[in-house]
Amino acid sequence: MSAKYDPANVFAKILRGEIPSHKVYEDSDCIVIMDVMPQANGHSLIVPKKPSRNLLDADPETLARSIRVIQRVARASMKAFNADGIVVRQFNEEASGQTVFHLHFHVIPIINGVPLKQHAATMEEAEILAGNAEKLAAALESEG
Amino acid sequence: MSAKYDPANVFAKILRGEIPSHKVYEDSDCIVIMDVMPQANGHSLIVPKKPSRNLLDADPETLARSIRVIQRVARASMKAFNADGIVVRQFNEEASGQTVFHLHFHVIPIINGVPLKQHAATMEEAEILAGNAEKLAAALESEG
Repeated sequence: MSAKYDPANVFAKILRGEIPSHKVYEDSDCIVIMDVMPQANGHSLIVPKKPSRNLLDADPETLARSIRVIQRVARASMKAFNADGIVVRQFNEEASGQTVFHLHFHVIPIINGVPLKQHAATMEEAEILAGNAEKLAAALESEG
Repeated sequence: MSAKYDPANVFAKILRGEIPSHKVYEDSDCIVIMDVMPQANGHSLIVPKKPSRNLLDADPETLARSIRVIQRVARASMKAFNADGIVVRQFNEEASGQTVFHLHFHVIPIINGVPLKQHAATMEEAEILAGNAEKLAAALESEG
């Protein structure tokens, strides 16, 4: 059905500390990082630590724990980015738009009337990403 | 942050049996139905029974159980609709594109080169929806 997990993907490298990221949160199950090519200001990613290519081959327990973090990040993103709504997206296989083949969930803050940018298209400035990571981390902390 | 849950929404009516749906699956936590205005052939919805407006006010336990069904539906959709990929989408609040204010998750089969139709735009023929519900139910059953 789908290809195998390849540990040379970018998120695996981030999880191993081989390349940097704008990290928002970490627990024993997952990390939350800012998407470096955001579709909207404050676009973050929930990346489970347990290796899987995507949702199709993921460990169900990992998924159950991940969605609690997704919910907390969604709530915190509403506050941190003064959003009017949130889109959660998750892509499986290249045909769907998946570009990094390690399971991840997109949490995208929506501001009324502001259209989303193209997926995985334009690199955001590091300073903006760092500031957003701080804002989101603070909102997550107060969210509990 | 967001408005209250309104039990007059379409999915609450479906859950109460007041209006029909093309049902694929049901357990104690959720139902799976075909989206009547699909973005692609085989587009289905996972609808938790426990009332919540969206992800932001959802019960975390319900979410944890829902994502296991989402995974099973995604896998089954790959087989049932001979898909090349799957997009999972979940919308929160009107600004994001949410049109029915009862928590639901979209599972959308992707065929290489076939663009998605607009969200919540064109009604599909009942016969096609019924056929797809049967196909997906059969694939879910063999998926286990």
